[in-house]
Amino acid sequence: MSIGEVTLVGGGPGEWDLLTIRGLRALEAADVILTDHLGPASQLEEFLDVSSKELIDVSKLPYGKQVAQERTNELLVEHALAGKRVVRLKGGDPYVFGRGFEELQVCAAAGVPCRVVPGVTSAISVPAAAGVPVTQRGVTHSFTVVSGHLAPSNPKSLVDWEALARVGGSICVIMGVRHVREIAAALVGAGLPPSTPAVAVQEGETASQRVVRATASTLADAMESEGIASPAVYVIGEVAGLASAG
Amino acid sequence: MSIGEVTLVGGGPGEWDLLTIRGLRALEAADVILTDHLGPASQLEEFLDVSSKELIDVSKLPYGKQVAQERTNELLVEHALAGKRVVRLKGGDPYVFGRGFEELQVCAAAGVPCRVVPGVTSAISVPAAAGVPVTQRGVTHSFTVVSGHLAPSNPKSLVDWEALARVGGSICVIMGVRHVREIAAALVGAGLPPSTPAVAVQEGETASQRVVRATASTLADAMESEGIASPAVYVIGEVAGLASAG
Repeated sequence: MSIGEVTLVGGGPGEWDLLTIRGLRALEAADVILTDHLGPASQLEEFLDVSSKELIDVSKLPYGKQVAQERTNELLVEHALAGKRVVRLKGGDPYVFGRGFEELQVCAAAGVPCRVVPGVTSAISVPAAAGVPVTQRGVTHSFTVVSGHLAPSNPKSLVDWEALARVGGSICVIMGVRHVREIAAALVGAGLPPSTPAVAVQEGETASQRVVRATASTLADAMESEGIASPAVYVIGEVAGLASAG
Repeated sequence: MSIGEVTLVGGGPGEWDLLTIRGLRALEAADVILTDHLGPASQLEEFLDVSSKELIDVSKLPYGKQVAQERTNELLVEHALAGKRVVRLKGGDPYVFGRGFEELQVCAAAGVPCRVVPGVTSAISVPAAAGVPVTQRGVTHSFTVVSGHLAPSNPKSLVDWEALARVGGSICVIMGVRHVREIAAALVGAGLPPSTPAVAVQEGETASQRVVRATASTLADAMESEGIASPAVYVIGEVAGLASAG
């Protein structure tokens, strides 16, 4: 029996038609598809004949978080070694906080061919869905996508938030709902003007999209009072003020 | 006669199958398509029946650069006001240094409906094509996409490169071939270790892809000796060293 393969597919931010054509073809050719709750996973049967495919929802693995990733890795390798064409469908892009490279490394170590199909990242497309461009000529020459999973005060944080406040570009925070108050305070405390526009977008590019506009100093209160929950992206920077003027 | 519409489509980094399905559908429905030399423009006839469509290559407009953008804006509005479904096909994502928001504003000012279809940004997917992930757990919690169009010493630059050197994440520079020597020197001068891995990728995700590996201190020489030319993306950061180990 010949060995199979693994394809890590970036599924984009939500609606299935933001999949790439390359990603769709990989799904069509797949024997086994591993999904979670992100991206277009819940819409699979709207655009794909899944009758002959095995679907595995790895977000439902009955383990702790880290063990679940290890089990996901095992499933990728096991099915590929059994000769299957395996697709790991992810939200956004596989290499933007998606553990895509970890999965690629696991496949490489097991001798399983693995390729990556890039996707539309939520970090850019979710603000865009709310009318906010991460760049605009004359306004910003850079944007930083940063994980808000760890609070700025967490010793494990690899981000110098004080430096980030001074870079001068748009700041796009993903996985940062829980720590928004500390993150905004760190940026303002490092010199970012409190009046800097900010926007938070929950479930962008889906039918459930919700948008909250604020400033760096009011963002945490605004998100709390509106009950903004994960998954959400927020952008702090002058570009966040362009949408309402557009 | 009813008014038409404009759709700004992110075409992705190169090969046409990295278009989104939504983008492809907009192209299929278009009466007029404005392209330039980026993204999948040169492959249009491989995936689209263009016989009934008007194609306009705005990269060939016989004007200076700024005037060309103004003429592009005029063409978008003129054709939409004439009742046409107009697609502006761009490389990468329309909101990543693509002047997408400017075009949206021009349409809004003219009363022309305009929507944006996000795309796979070259800033992430081009490094990925060379095996480099912009994020990796335990290595970096952020990445910054920065335009290298203006040198760090240019008074019009909106980027604090000294602060950027200290953020601690991956630094992805696009449109930065000409100024790579000054950019790398600014980062190293601000404290980025000279041994920080770096990778430059020319024409990533196309058949002409070329990759050069170096460090922050050797990147400019390496790109010069290999003759790396635009369009290219380079990444400076620990993630650039992961590829060869993968």
